[in-house]
Amino acid sequence: MSNVAVLSRADNADFDRNDPVSVRQAIRAGLYRRHTGMMAPGFVQANLAILPADYADEFARFCQRNPQPCPLLAMSEPGSPRLPELAEDLDIRTDLPSYRVFKDGVATGDVSDIRNLWRDDFVVFALGCSYSFEQAMIEAGLKLNHWETGLEPAIYLTSIQCRPAGRFSGPMVVSMRSFKPADAIRAIQITSRFPRVHGAPVHIGLPEQIGIADVHKGWQGGPPDLREGEIPLFWACGVTPQSVIRSAKPPISITHTPSHMLVTDLRNASLASF
Amino acid sequence: MSNVAVLSRADNADFDRNDPVSVRQAIRAGLYRRHTGMMAPGFVQANLAILPADYADEFARFCQRNPQPCPLLAMSEPGSPRLPELAEDLDIRTDLPSYRVFKDGVATGDVSDIRNLWRDDFVVFALGCSYSFEQAMIEAGLKLNHWETGLEPAIYLTSIQCRPAGRFSGPMVVSMRSFKPADAIRAIQITSRFPRVHGAPVHIGLPEQIGIADVHKGWQGGPPDLREGEIPLFWACGVTPQSVIRSAKPPISITHTPSHMLVTDLRNASLASF
Repeated sequence: MSNVAVLSRADNADFDRNDPVSVRQAIRAGLYRRHTGMMAPGFVQANLAILPADYADEFARFCQRNPQPCPLLAMSEPGSPRLPELAEDLDIRTDLPSYRVFKDGVATGDVSDIRNLWRDDFVVFALGCSYSFEQAMIEAGLKLNHWETGLEPAIYLTSIQCRPAGRFSGPMVVSMRSFKPADAIRAIQITSRFPRVHGAPVHIGLPEQIGIADVHKGWQGGPPDLREGEIPLFWACGVTPQSVIRSAKPPISITHTPSHMLVTDLRNASLASF
Repeated sequence: MSNVAVLSRADNADFDRNDPVSVRQAIRAGLYRRHTGMMAPGFVQANLAILPADYADEFARFCQRNPQPCPLLAMSEPGSPRLPELAEDLDIRTDLPSYRVFKDGVATGDVSDIRNLWRDDFVVFALGCSYSFEQAMIEAGLKLNHWETGLEPAIYLTSIQCRPAGRFSGPMVVSMRSFKPADAIRAIQITSRFPRVHGAPVHIGLPEQIGIADVHKGWQGGPPDLREGEIPLFWACGVTPQSVIRSAKPPISITHTPSHMLVTDLRNASLASF
């Protein structure tokens, strides 16, 4: 990841940050390279994974078997950089502000464009991400501690094993958000409506049951921010597929750089089940 | 309540226990006087409250303001013993196996028929009850500790004040059911679908926040059955309206005897919101 710092970090370009098409155009033109956190509010952002065809069927099966950590929003034809279900104009090779490249499961660096890495056997996977359900919670009036502090939610490795598929296997990674009890109930109700972006929590209240010895010690993400009178809720996390891909050690794979997501034309509300 | 024991407790009558019409007919004919727990499975059973018209408007407002403890399924015209929304043939004066009569808020005894007490200013309230959502949880494969033991869930008085309406006010009463964490999440999802029968829990996990000093000491109901590795969930309870009616001390009021409910023709599933 040594070349993260040398990426151009343009952030004062003039484009419509509320419109996903404008956001992608700005990124495609090299005008915007920063994280997508505040971009196109109300629209779905997706986690990205690109794998050679030889690994793609197994990974598709892994997603199908583990829909909470790996909610598959779209999957391309082999060799195609298009995902028309997510946006008509989308070119996955240019439309993310930053990509992370892995060789044999090891990160070799972040790049702002993958046209020169593209292969005609690549299959693109776009996976739902927690931004969508967090937005639904905020709109419902819930408070997220890490939105107040401007940090990331804490992330933990658990003792829950994903259902394996071929060369893909490993533990589920979860993110933690904590709430007062009545808000915890609301948080479960709200996120249950969004199974395509991780859905309901997988666990509540007793972290030791899922192999988290100390909830105040995270594995990745921000510092755990569990406050007095709150209950911790644990959602399946999009870091899970990244972690299992690394373990499977494909000769090459490409993901988004954390927080530098694929911005789509799908509205968050369009994913609500009911 | 001294005359509970003298009620006829017929329980071997020959009628179709799966059919709500047959159940009511058997009760109406005096052939069945026991609790309705296993009667007409899949059909809604309701809590009963009957008040003089002078109190009815205030109580209707109380229910409207407190839909979790007092989910109003049906309300009669003054003087009418019919609730055609719940069953065409229903006569509220004869169709419950046992009634409890209160004078000035004090229980004076249980009776098997209220035709001789009927007044042309009586208004009937039928309120959703937890049997419906418990059945939905059982059908979804959840285990209820108190179903295993054959006891009642524990009931607690809380520090949550109901929104008052006229002479009706008082604390919310809750019932507790406990689950392993993943099942607790399912329990919230399932009961959220049934707002007309108490709906989602009002609290989870930290009972001291709602004035329950010791979760292992109930106020009414069965013994608290919170087991190792489980989280307690608290639902608004149908004992709440009975408790506020007693406090309001109407000159006369009539409820069902606990567990001796109104059996209706509504299917539980018909109450699901989504």
